[in-house]
Amino acid sequence: MGEDDRQTKYIYRFEEGSRDMRGLLGGKGANLAEMTTMGLPVPPGFTITTLASAEYRRDGKMPESLLREIWEAMSDLESARGREFGSKDNPLLVSVRSGAPVSMPGMMDTVLNLGLNTETVQGLARATGDERFALDCLRRFVQMFGNVVRGIPTGDFERILESAREDAGVTTDHRLGPDELEQVIDRYLDLYRRRTGEPFPEDPRHQLIEAVEAVFRSWDNQRAVVYRRHQGIPDDVGTAVNVQSMVFGNLGNDGGTGVLFTRDPASGDPLLYGEYLQNAQGEDVVAGLRTPRAIDEMAQTMPDVYEELKRLAVVLEEHYGDVQDIEFTVEGGELFVLQTRTAKRTPAAAVRIAHDMVVEGVISREEAMMRVNPEDLSVLLHPSIDLAGEVDSVGRGLPASPGAASGKVVFDSDEAERMANDGERVLLVRPETTPDDIHGIVGAQGILTSRGGMTCHAAIVARGMGKPCIVGCGELKIDLAQQKAWLGSLELEPGDLITIDGTTGSVFAGEMELVEPILTSHFRTFLEWADEVRVLGVRANADTPVDAAVARDFGAEGIGLCRTEHMFMEPRRLKAVQNMIMANTSEERREALAEILPLQRSDFVELFEQMHGLPVTIRLLDPPLHEFLPDVAQLKEEIREMRASGAGWTALAEKEELHSRAVGLQESNPMLGLRGCRLGLTRPEIYEMQVRAIFEAMIQVREDGVEILPEIMIPLVSDVREYRELAAMVRRVEEEVGSVGDHLVGTMIEVPRACITAGEIAAEAEFFSFGTNDLTQTTFGFSRDDAEAKFMHHYLTEGLLDDNPFAVLDEAGVGELVRMGVDRGRSERGGLKIGICGEHGGDPKSIDFCHRVGMDYVSCSPYRIPIARLAAARAALADADRSEYR
Amino acid sequence: MGEDDRQTKYIYRFEEGSRDMRGLLGGKGANLAEMTTMGLPVPPGFTITTLASAEYRRDGKMPESLLREIWEAMSDLESARGREFGSKDNPLLVSVRSGAPVSMPGMMDTVLNLGLNTETVQGLARATGDERFALDCLRRFVQMFGNVVRGIPTGDFERILESAREDAGVTTDHRLGPDELEQVIDRYLDLYRRRTGEPFPEDPRHQLIEAVEAVFRSWDNQRAVVYRRHQGIPDDVGTAVNVQSMVFGNLGNDGGTGVLFTRDPASGDPLLYGEYLQNAQGEDVVAGLRTPRAIDEMAQTMPDVYEELKRLAVVLEEHYGDVQDIEFTVEGGELFVLQTRTAKRTPAAAVRIAHDMVVEGVISREEAMMRVNPEDLSVLLHPSIDLAGEVDSVGRGLPASPGAASGKVVFDSDEAERMANDGERVLLVRPETTPDDIHGIVGAQGILTSRGGMTCHAAIVARGMGKPCIVGCGELKIDLAQQKAWLGSLELEPGDLITIDGTTGSVFAGEMELVEPILTSHFRTFLEWADEVRVLGVRANADTPVDAAVARDFGAEGIGLCRTEHMFMEPRRLKAVQNMIMANTSEERREALAEILPLQRSDFVELFEQMHGLPVTIRLLDPPLHEFLPDVAQLKEEIREMRASGAGWTALAEKEELHSRAVGLQESNPMLGLRGCRLGLTRPEIYEMQVRAIFEAMIQVREDGVEILPEIMIPLVSDVREYRELAAMVRRVEEEVGSVGDHLVGTMIEVPRACITAGEIAAEAEFFSFGTNDLTQTTFGFSRDDAEAKFMHHYLTEGLLDDNPFAVLDEAGVGELVRMGVDRGRSERGGLKIGICGEHGGDPKSIDFCHRVGMDYVSCSPYRIPIARLAAARAALADADRSEYR
Repeated sequence: MGEDDRQTKYIYRFEEGSRDMRGLLGGKGANLAEMTTMGLPVPPGFTITTLASAEYRRDGKMPESLLREIWEAMSDLESARGREFGSKDNPLLVSVRSGAPVSMPGMMDTVLNLGLNTETVQGLARATGDERFALDCLRRFVQMFGNVVRGIPTGDFERILESAREDAGVTTDHRLGPDELEQVIDRYLDLYRRRTGEPFPEDPRHQLIEAVEAVFRSWDNQRAVVYRRHQGIPDDVGTAVNVQSMVFGNLGNDGGTGVLFTRDPASGDPLLYGEYLQNAQGEDVVAGLRTPRAIDEMAQTMPDVYEELKRLAVVLEEHYGDVQDIEFTVEGGELFVLQTRTAKRTPAAAVRIAHDMVVEGVISREEAMMRVNPEDLSVLLHPSIDLAGEVDSVGRGLPASPGAASGKVVFDSDEAERMANDGERVLLVRPETTPDDIHGIVGAQGILTSRGGMTCHAAIVARGMGKPCIVGCGELKIDLAQQKAWLGSLELEPGDLITIDGTTGSVFAGEMELVEPILTSHFRTFLEWADEVRVLGVRANADTPVDAAVARDFGAEGIGLCRTEHMFMEPRRLKAVQNMIMANTSEERREALAEILPLQRSDFVELFEQMHGLPVTIRLLDPPLHEFLPDVAQLKEEIREMRASGAGWTALAEKEELHSRAVGLQESNPMLGLRGCRLGLTRPEIYEMQVRAIFEAMIQVREDGVEILPEIMIPLVSDVREYRELAAMVRRVEEEVGSVGDHLVGTMIEVPRACITAGEIAAEAEFFSFGTNDLTQTTFGFSRDDAEAKFMHHYLTEGLLDDNPFAVLDEAGVGELVRMGVDRGRSERGGLKIGICGEHGGDPKSIDFCHRVGMDYVSCSPYRIPIARLAAARAALADADRSEYR
Repeated sequence: MGEDDRQTKYIYRFEEGSRDMRGLLGGKGANLAEMTTMGLPVPPGFTITTLASAEYRRDGKMPESLLREIWEAMSDLESARGREFGSKDNPLLVSVRSGAPVSMPGMMDTVLNLGLNTETVQGLARATGDERFALDCLRRFVQMFGNVVRGIPTGDFERILESAREDAGVTTDHRLGPDELEQVIDRYLDLYRRRTGEPFPEDPRHQLIEAVEAVFRSWDNQRAVVYRRHQGIPDDVGTAVNVQSMVFGNLGNDGGTGVLFTRDPASGDPLLYGEYLQNAQGEDVVAGLRTPRAIDEMAQTMPDVYEELKRLAVVLEEHYGDVQDIEFTVEGGELFVLQTRTAKRTPAAAVRIAHDMVVEGVISREEAMMRVNPEDLSVLLHPSIDLAGEVDSVGRGLPASPGAASGKVVFDSDEAERMANDGERVLLVRPETTPDDIHGIVGAQGILTSRGGMTCHAAIVARGMGKPCIVGCGELKIDLAQQKAWLGSLELEPGDLITIDGTTGSVFAGEMELVEPILTSHFRTFLEWADEVRVLGVRANADTPVDAAVARDFGAEGIGLCRTEHMFMEPRRLKAVQNMIMANTSEERREALAEILPLQRSDFVELFEQMHGLPVTIRLLDPPLHEFLPDVAQLKEEIREMRASGAGWTALAEKEELHSRAVGLQESNPMLGLRGCRLGLTRPEIYEMQVRAIFEAMIQVREDGVEILPEIMIPLVSDVREYRELAAMVRRVEEEVGSVGDHLVGTMIEVPRACITAGEIAAEAEFFSFGTNDLTQTTFGFSRDDAEAKFMHHYLTEGLLDDNPFAVLDEAGVGELVRMGVDRGRSERGGLKIGICGEHGGDPKSIDFCHRVGMDYVSCSPYRIPIARLAAARAALADADRSEYR
């Protein structure tokens, strides 16, 4: 065995390794070696290999030749640093760190300042001219060594320190003077002796060997063993040990310490960014007693070091291919890099950096795509609060529609409209909203409600309009009679200023500074690159010409979902819609609908003009009719009041008729009731009017040379027979209207049965659009509103669900039905056009699924189009089957 | 070709054929031959083969030798009947009928009395002594021949007849005298001449050949061609033609006509049953001028014929293996059988007959199973209305719980309870019921509501109790304030008697005679045979010891679903349940639940005792908590009244608290809300109490030697993690309670996601029970209540659905998910115990599916247990894979 030992190399100096030697040197060792060999001024050191660790564990002792190698390497360190390990005058100090090939919690971590003892500490004090600092280094070393090498609980040391602070009448450690620290050290050494039965090792060589052995042993501690078992890491890998010389930035004015970002991590501007402290050590930065200087001041104070840093920034970015966050220390005018890692950055910076690095030729466009998290783009697309995170919110609700808004509190929609017309910025604050509040929502900057879930009226309408909205803010108590509201410590009256952040759901007192979104040219270019990569089309869910314009500007390639009910809810039409609902016969219904027809037709005309050349998917009326009537309880109340006030007979009779109709339309579970195609089948006049409006609009815009590709979508089909009857109706209306031009007729797939029978449906339908909101509700048996109000929070915090399935498509359940729908649909009708128009269409994880399942496009809110474009590109890149992007 | 013709036999006399010669003789010809060869006195005749028809169609003319064969056969007929074709004195008359191998609409059907003309009619008049009858025969013959042979519309003949009736001032044909009939015949012959350009063929031979050719040609008429294409029947098969001598029962008192059932078709008693008219023809029976006599009187009037009929009844039952319905005519003391077919029968008779025929050795037990339609048994298991079908109902609602009941109308549950305690029979009539009405439902004979669907409160509770119930009777208007109701023409006040039929949904005025169900010994034996055949187990959905007793009596092999919420709804417990809901902390909840625990435990004790030796599946609390609270609108009304009447502060505050809690528990879609395991997970105290009650009851009954096999069922699981957490809770409670003995823990599979992830769930759950009510709701996206109230009727009448999927399991959609759940569950856990506990568990078509999909058992309402036992046996017999039952 002695023979073998001599042949094995157990130690690699940093300059001998590289990042490929992770198995032998561990992750940290390989990284230090990499930095060293690429020429960075890393404090010198060496790595004891994983092999040594494995032999130690096998034999219960260190390989003989290892000790010899250690002292050889230490001797090289002494030469390199011009210091002596254990010297009283100018002692070499080292750090000892474990470093397995895979990072592993529970392993012994770090011992700093190894080599200090009651004698060498004097040398450090002399060198730094700071006795307090030197003694504190020793105190920390004893504590760290005692804890990580010998297992003495940190709390025991902390209690000693605490009583010293009490004795001295100070609250922080750095107020303890040298004498007090010496006493603490004495008590530490005493604690060490009592707990281990041995004196603290004064001999630095002894310290080093003990520390290395402790690292070896920590491989087998329980937490590490459990972790390995859980992660399937073999037990016999072993860990490497890194021994590195310490450097000090507080040895004089030719030293210091700091942090450098190779570009501005907030804006992405290609300028050095960072800060430093002269004649200081990391501890000084943490203590916060001195204010660091901006990095570019170093050009004056340490011009050589600054030039060196500038050079290194370029080298590092080139080497690692990304912006770096570098920790450095300067000792005696000499720059040492302690660590470099990929810099964290704001979303704006992420886009700017990705863009610039492509232009600079550092990374490819494909790599740039993978550098930006699509979800993070959201803040770039909506107004946001400037001081977000620095001001406390007064309450929280569900983040129903992103973006921030400030304005005066108004409890009434009429008043909101009036004030808005007077040019005031208002926030509509209501228990909940109904179709009667539309004019108030239109006038308001944002909406805040105490009730409702992510799909309540306010949430849907606000998202459609791109207005910030918070719903279900349970802490908000509103007394409409008194015109007052309470939220946390705040009492609100009409006219009080508040700010809401619909992205986070937070409500703030007063008017806060907002940052408006700007689509920079970098951002636009970056998204164009994404477009080149992605396979999925990206469309918008947009109901109005305004939405459509926003969507086009954000890059939508069509409308994937135009919800015609929002057209019905417009204030000036609601009356006609209510007349239609109140009609007793098919004839009366037709008459009422005839009033709506021209309005609906002009909606489509405007939309088609706006979307010239792009496809527009129009969903026929979906919601149950009672959504267009006032609330039953409210009507009952009104009737009571009218009776009490002796209202006229006719007005009362009319109101009573409305109430009775509303009662008749009530449902136990409206989400599963008379809506979608069921409405179209039982009240055929409505869909007929809508289809006629579409066809007439097609004829009208075609005369103006507008190119149109409408896709008429029949919602909530559960059986092909429902589709068949309504598709026949569309053809019948087409024959009546005359030659209308190309268009498709298809269906939404949004209940499980439609996925299961997708083959039969695809035999007749010309396209599919997955309505994954409803499909998620029916697959789980969760009402979204009720789930989010009643138990979703519990489910997410208790780990009963990984994600809210209404935000991230549930691949195991809902996804399997979608896959079934796609497969069965396409095997019946090859090349069937398939998209998704649920809110998942704007979620990156779900978009990745849509790509993998082979959809043609995703459709999402206009304000999520850029997110979807990027997410679709990333999905294409991640797709292992598409080798051209590898 | 002349050569071939001579070798081909184109005609078979009835006595030459058999039922195996369907291809050559057609269905009717083979049947007549069969009856003849088995010795029945069938009026003699012969069949022209399908081959002759094929040649006629090929050559456009009859094969030469066919004519010769026809006259030979006619000559034999003349000999056999002692009459001459075309004779003026005693003419032989024949019928001509088509008869293809497969019965086919559109083919020429029947010409009767062929051989009559203006001369031979005199002979018939003389023979019958009834000139009017003879002339009417001729009139009918001319009309029939003109219509079916020459295509003259029947309406043209009918118009002549009508004007003759008008001229004579009579309203029915049999009031027309001989002179008038002669005039009609003249006008008929005139019409014939005008339409065909030929005179009516007086020559009987001519008539016969024309009729035969007409049959041949009718093979190619459009309706027959379309039908063949649709059914995939080849065009070259051709049809046979049957020529049979006419017999007359009105030639004297030694003749007559009648119908005989070989057993009583109402009771199934093994006695001849039927009626006859002496010296009469079928027409006389139809005219209804004379009252037929019971068949056994024939023993006196025509003893020989009666004996012959008795003998034939035995022969026929033996031959056909089933009860026969025989048409016969007696001419000159000679019995002729015109037709025999399987007799229609009541459900009671079907059971009795199937049983008796097994005992008599006529059929096997397996054949007996296939003779009784399981669905028909329902009427044998509930009281039914004696005169059902003969009295008009005054209104109709949804048949929510089968059976009939009469009683006094009561609009109030307190009053219903009071009157019931006084021994009165009452029917509770309400707009809808709530948990507050339980005592009223308990006291009432039946329930009638104007609102609600098949799963509303009244429907569920009534089905559970086996009480007749009609819900959603929209025509019923109730004014509770006035204590009046209106239904159709009826105005109802408290105390008025009405009758409801929950089997059909019909409401009747007054008290109607009811027939109580009796489980006869024949029925019991019959069901025991079914038990021997079936593979599926049959359990009951039963919540109370009373239900359980009924279920056991009906043959349930366990309880497949005990809904514990019904235990919560009992009046004396509801208060404690409401306290639990009102509790603000987990502690308060526990206190309130502690009151319920002993009651719940004693429920289980009673249930276990009742089900000694059989498994009992107990579902933990499923419905949302608001179902246990009064209605929000009602509470609001009560608060208003209390305020108006100056109620005490405490009482008002309490009511307001209740109202606020009820509002807080409201949900947009309760069916998809906080219920089932979601309730168990967010309010763990409730399930803990229930599980503790089960375990403590197990220990208690075990001491009394009761054998128990409880299966604890966790409802509404959509992900294995929900199940895992609650199953762990069950184990925890088990450890606390101590050694409780064997039991299973499993889950209900009732949302699509549970089917999809059934593999993961089966890895932990010990049994599955498919809750197909909810699974149907979520698979279609239909709320049962709303669908049945709003659009199901439209869907069924318009053919958008074949069956109501809540009654008959939708195999294409829901069934595929069930199949997926079974397959994935069993492939993870071989032999996983699987049942169904939705209402489909009592539907024969659905039971057949459950058998095919490999379930272990079905569970249904106690009153459907016999239906399920039979349906399960039939499913096993129908299963092609189980060869032992073939």
